[in-house]
Amino acid sequence: MSGNEGEEEIVFEIGVVVPKKGENQGDESSLDCVDVLVDEFKKRGLIVERVLGLQNEFIKLAAPLEILGKAAAELQFRKQTHIGMDLPFEWDEVEAFVRQPDGSLFTWCERFRCYNHIIYWIVNTGKSVVELKYDCREINWIPGEPLLRKLESEGVVKEVFPLHDENKRKKLLRSWALNWWDFTTQPIDEIYLYYGVKIAIYFAFLGKYTRWMLFPATLGLTMQLVDFGSMQLLVLPFFFICLISWAVLFFQFWKRKNSALLARWQINHLAGAESEYKFFQMEQSSLQSPAELMKKRGADKMKEKAFFQREEWFRWLMRFRNDAVIILSIICLQLPFELAYAHLYEVIGSDFLKFCLTAVYLLAIQSFTRMGGKISVKLVKCENNENVEYRARSLVYKVFGLYFMQSYIGIFYHALLHRNLMTLRQVLIQRLIMYEVLENLMENSIPYLTYSFKKFRAIRNKRKREQGSSTGKGQTIPRVEKEYLKPAYAASIGRELEDGLFDDFLELVLQFGMIMMFACAFPLAFAFATLNNLTEIRTDALKLLAMMRRPTPRADATIGAWLNIFQFLIVMSICTNSILLVCLYDQDGKWKVSPGLAAILIMEHVLLFIKFGFSRIVPEEPAWVRAARMKNAAQAADMCSKQLLRSISGDEKIFSQMKKST
Amino acid sequence: MSGNEGEEEIVFEIGVVVPKKGENQGDESSLDCVDVLVDEFKKRGLIVERVLGLQNEFIKLAAPLEILGKAAAELQFRKQTHIGMDLPFEWDEVEAFVRQPDGSLFTWCERFRCYNHIIYWIVNTGKSVVELKYDCREINWIPGEPLLRKLESEGVVKEVFPLHDENKRKKLLRSWALNWWDFTTQPIDEIYLYYGVKIAIYFAFLGKYTRWMLFPATLGLTMQLVDFGSMQLLVLPFFFICLISWAVLFFQFWKRKNSALLARWQINHLAGAESEYKFFQMEQSSLQSPAELMKKRGADKMKEKAFFQREEWFRWLMRFRNDAVIILSIICLQLPFELAYAHLYEVIGSDFLKFCLTAVYLLAIQSFTRMGGKISVKLVKCENNENVEYRARSLVYKVFGLYFMQSYIGIFYHALLHRNLMTLRQVLIQRLIMYEVLENLMENSIPYLTYSFKKFRAIRNKRKREQGSSTGKGQTIPRVEKEYLKPAYAASIGRELEDGLFDDFLELVLQFGMIMMFACAFPLAFAFATLNNLTEIRTDALKLLAMMRRPTPRADATIGAWLNIFQFLIVMSICTNSILLVCLYDQDGKWKVSPGLAAILIMEHVLLFIKFGFSRIVPEEPAWVRAARMKNAAQAADMCSKQLLRSISGDEKIFSQMKKST
Repeated sequence: MSGNEGEEEIVFEIGVVVPKKGENQGDESSLDCVDVLVDEFKKRGLIVERVLGLQNEFIKLAAPLEILGKAAAELQFRKQTHIGMDLPFEWDEVEAFVRQPDGSLFTWCERFRCYNHIIYWIVNTGKSVVELKYDCREINWIPGEPLLRKLESEGVVKEVFPLHDENKRKKLLRSWALNWWDFTTQPIDEIYLYYGVKIAIYFAFLGKYTRWMLFPATLGLTMQLVDFGSMQLLVLPFFFICLISWAVLFFQFWKRKNSALLARWQINHLAGAESEYKFFQMEQSSLQSPAELMKKRGADKMKEKAFFQREEWFRWLMRFRNDAVIILSIICLQLPFELAYAHLYEVIGSDFLKFCLTAVYLLAIQSFTRMGGKISVKLVKCENNENVEYRARSLVYKVFGLYFMQSYIGIFYHALLHRNLMTLRQVLIQRLIMYEVLENLMENSIPYLTYSFKKFRAIRNKRKREQGSSTGKGQTIPRVEKEYLKPAYAASIGRELEDGLFDDFLELVLQFGMIMMFACAFPLAFAFATLNNLTEIRTDALKLLAMMRRPTPRADATIGAWLNIFQFLIVMSICTNSILLVCLYDQDGKWKVSPGLAAILIMEHVLLFIKFGFSRIVPEEPAWVRAARMKNAAQAADMCSKQLLRSISGDEKIFSQMKKST
Repeated sequence: MSGNEGEEEIVFEIGVVVPKKGENQGDESSLDCVDVLVDEFKKRGLIVERVLGLQNEFIKLAAPLEILGKAAAELQFRKQTHIGMDLPFEWDEVEAFVRQPDGSLFTWCERFRCYNHIIYWIVNTGKSVVELKYDCREINWIPGEPLLRKLESEGVVKEVFPLHDENKRKKLLRSWALNWWDFTTQPIDEIYLYYGVKIAIYFAFLGKYTRWMLFPATLGLTMQLVDFGSMQLLVLPFFFICLISWAVLFFQFWKRKNSALLARWQINHLAGAESEYKFFQMEQSSLQSPAELMKKRGADKMKEKAFFQREEWFRWLMRFRNDAVIILSIICLQLPFELAYAHLYEVIGSDFLKFCLTAVYLLAIQSFTRMGGKISVKLVKCENNENVEYRARSLVYKVFGLYFMQSYIGIFYHALLHRNLMTLRQVLIQRLIMYEVLENLMENSIPYLTYSFKKFRAIRNKRKREQGSSTGKGQTIPRVEKEYLKPAYAASIGRELEDGLFDDFLELVLQFGMIMMFACAFPLAFAFATLNNLTEIRTDALKLLAMMRRPTPRADATIGAWLNIFQFLIVMSICTNSILLVCLYDQDGKWKVSPGLAAILIMEHVLLFIKFGFSRIVPEEPAWVRAARMKNAAQAADMCSKQLLRSISGDEKIFSQMKKST
């Protein structure tokens, strides 16, 4: 849309938003802080472009590879080398490191970290305070203070956000978001390169999930369409067993797929673990010589062990307390509320009252969820978890508890207490179709509407001001300002810990629970879900590419907590479906134990066995991935062992002599 | 007993058994093969002592540290260094490696591997065949042929077996086997040093298991002794819940204990994985230069991946087929047999007939088990598992299936079909007390009796011969011959894959199943089991120290397959106890569903949830162990990264130039 084709080589990836300079600025006696910031950016080697928007000024930043590489070396990134081993990055030895599939050296996630490192570590290296000016205020830049943080806290820099790469975005739009006829196939590698690993993993999961979903969908359709005659009674249990096996196998194969993807992208599986290690390293940051290390080792070992043990127990206690708080409050507060709603809904006759009740209920759960989310975030924050991803997981579990109650307790009520299968089916259809369609519409239209509104307001404001000052500048909004006006990819809950993936996964999980837990009451649900997921792939892609700012990349390489939630839902669905079957076959309403009930109970146990047995049969990691990992680990030590040994044993000799002499 | 105190420094650890030289040997024209063997041992630097026994001659071998070290370097052992990282052993850099708690460099397991390497790699380095003589036979030692193997196949060397270290053995006897008043505490570190990791882990497990067992034992005793009045009905379910939680927590804490022990003994957890890596390394054994590696990398990667994928699927199929064979044959052959026995036992009135029946049954299952074991070993052998420990595990699962049916199906029959709780209790008491006491007696007396018988026969033979030749040599048997006459620590089943630990673990597992699965019928069982395990610790120790040869050490560092079997038994016991409770509370014999049955069903599900949920709450590895592991992994790469990088990137440059020029 912006026709500057010559710019192809420079890709601006970070945008900094500052207010437009007031026009009544004449005196040049002290330094304008924005000019200083731009100068400092340039000094660090960044390529800077200043763009004047309608309301704000934008500083677009790009970095030559060398600048990024040096930042990476300072950050001590571990990157895979050509011998297959991860080593800390060095700019001088850049040839040793494996490049990305598209030929670039760093992934988007790494580039983003480098940019952050560069721009947030512009400190005042002089010895005196630098006086900066902004509008009419004075800002004192104290020695050693990072400039960008200072300006952010003073309100001069409004935001720092990642920019879309217009060429790649358009390419992806064509090859991915608008490519409806590809059904579940997606250009995962390009998504990975553009959005980073976490989002790519989400879409890979969504694709594989939808592909596998075709099996139960056809099974459900057949059950609906074909009349099995006298076999009808046996068809449902058969469907049930197929379904559970399907779900268990799917998640096992997903784990394999996940680790295969990570191996393809050369991501070390234990990347998360590494950050945990740094947690203790602070104390011994000066580790260089083996001799020093060894001296510390003996004394430190016991101290370290005690430290970790204390830490572990404390963490465990905090987590236990928090979980207890959450679980108790869900059971004591939310459960009665939901049951009251379900009961009133069942009891009330008039349709109008029902409608009113539902409206009140919807408003109530909105605020309930928001409150619950806030409490969860607060609890998670005092949990002292090792790193951000652990915290995000802890939050996911807690918030899912809320949503679980909210989404299913009413359905349980209809299914179990009133044994009203017709109402159950109605509720399911209603939820599945209405809810999903509405969700999809909402999540795509709301960002677009907010964006349009913001744009409209910006133009209107501009016009108003122009009428005042009557300078005849062009009306076009620069692209970077358009991006700034787009909403960020953030979670509806706990913005600090999770991004928009939270909502997308939540939708998927709730759908999975809905179709699995009540599968025996409504086998057709899988067909609906398949259709929904097929559209979900493209609409989510469209949302990410066209309606949102580029999300900040995240390093988590698995679907994390959600996987455990899926597993939990499988177990739940074994139990609920067993109960449903009992209800279906026990028509006269008395809990009479016939051979039928015994059979269902036995089947339930067999299924639980399948659930927990199958995961042992299929290994989580393909053999080739495992072998490659092993090889890398072994090579790591082999390559340099001799020389290392010499230095250790040399130092050890000196050390033991020292010991003797003292 | 042998009073040579001056020998303290030389510890003979390997014994080689050769026949006594016939006395009619006069001609010295060609070489006697035993003399050659001894000479070769001496040439390799081993310390050799020849002892003339009553029936055989014994060559006792000891090795100075340097000889072992050089063998270790040839074998490329990975050992932990002082910086905490595992590196291949080098004799010249011996100072760099961590020593054992008792100051020795190598563990018993490592020493044993070194000895084996030394003595089995005595090859004919010359170019011509060496003609050896034994009695009157000629043995041709072909160039490149290992001498010991040759002599073994010719029947000259009867056996090679590890020798007890008399000092340490006596010390352990005092501090461990005869130390009854220590109850569950044992000198685990010394056991580890003397017997190696696998046996030490067994005893650590047994100790911790017995210690934890005190809790359910006291609970069971209280239930038996105290009369709860009207609460009686609630006590049993409470006991049940406590029990399952106890079992789940115990195994979770055992895993922690296990990894803590391994960290203390400086054993790398992934040692098993390493051997798997070597599996593919054969093809690229010449890896030295990074450049070579890289050239291969591109082409090899795809081939390797395909190879591993094929391999994995093939292995999976084989395993699946074998498991299917085993399961089907157990269900189709063993189950009807066991049920027939249980039914006949129930039906027959006369005590004499019952006794006959039991005798026939016992004989039948003896041969049944032996046959099953043989089939299992054969099946496992064609499974193409990665290494020996995998095979052993596979065998354990298969054989356990047999024993499971054998031990429990009769009890199930009494409990479930006949709902005869009195018979059930009788059978349980009978099995627990009689069986365990008998087992203990048998496993200790049989080795002793066989040993005594062999010794007696040896002395008698000697006497007979002496009467013939009438030379007046002393009647004392040398110690090494006594050890040779002792039985080896071998499994009753599948001698090639498992050692005596198999039987010990099997006993433990069967006991666990018995007391857990029928806990609600007989809570007192835990007290019996505790007493039994307390004696088991000492009698097993006594057996190992006094009645068996020193076992060949094994490298497996966990209780492996048995852990999974324990877990399986916990799940089984949730189900069986639920059924037992239903039987107990449903006295009139009709399967009527009262609120009681519903309550039990709910409880069962809660317990299953506990089982699978609890294992997530308690991490398997203590935080300090994990942190130490992480640190080692990170240091590995950090220490030598710069220099490595230079060599990789240098080679890479050359490589890319080469590519361009071609």
